[in-house]
Amino acid sequence: MTKHVQKEPYFAVIFTSKSSDNTKGYEEMAKKMDELVKSQEGFIGLESVKEGQEGITVSYWKSMEAIKNWSMNERHAAAKKGGKETWYDSFNVRICEVVREYAFEK
Amino acid sequence: MTKHVQKEPYFAVIFTSKSSDNTKGYEEMAKKMDELVKSQEGFIGLESVKEGQEGITVSYWKSMEAIKNWSMNERHAAAKKGGKETWYDSFNVRICEVVREYAFEK
Repeated sequence: MTKHVQKEPYFAVIFTSKSSDNTKGYEEMAKKMDELVKSQEGFIGLESVKEGQEGITVSYWKSMEAIKNWSMNERHAAAKKGGKETWYDSFNVRICEVVREYAFEK
Repeated sequence: MTKHVQKEPYFAVIFTSKSSDNTKGYEEMAKKMDELVKSQEGFIGLESVKEGQEGITVSYWKSMEAIKNWSMNERHAAAKKGGKETWYDSFNVRICEVVREYAFEK
């Protein structure tokens, strides 16, 4: 049954991307970032799906401050630099406040 | 170069799903919904990625009212009924206000 999920206000970062043909070092970086993000203060969770060169990753956060701290993390900044130089042809980052939520589970 | 994209406030609907093993009629419905959503007042765009049974679809809207109208669309409601009964084991719908946005393109 679909039910309304009651929660504290929280935030989502929608990262949509088109990867380049150069995948050298990508998997290693992605694995490191996956570990690092989970240790961040205010991190709630992450969902990521990839289909060919198109990817969507959504991460969830307790506050805008937590998102800002993660964006300024030094190792994350280095990964983003690599992303721009090497791994992505294009991407969009959208920072959102989650207003309502519904969940369905069989 | 990464740049800040200036826009009017707008909204995102994040649909994350785990599909069932029963795909009968899914493609036909998905194609119809894809056409129908594009004709909705206030619809901006849509990004969708699928990897095995995991899917993330993000649609963008000019207002909360446009999202509400789409959620109440009769043919959309019928598709959602099929989704619950047949095509999905679970899904989440998160309605969000986009607060900030960055775009990168090579």
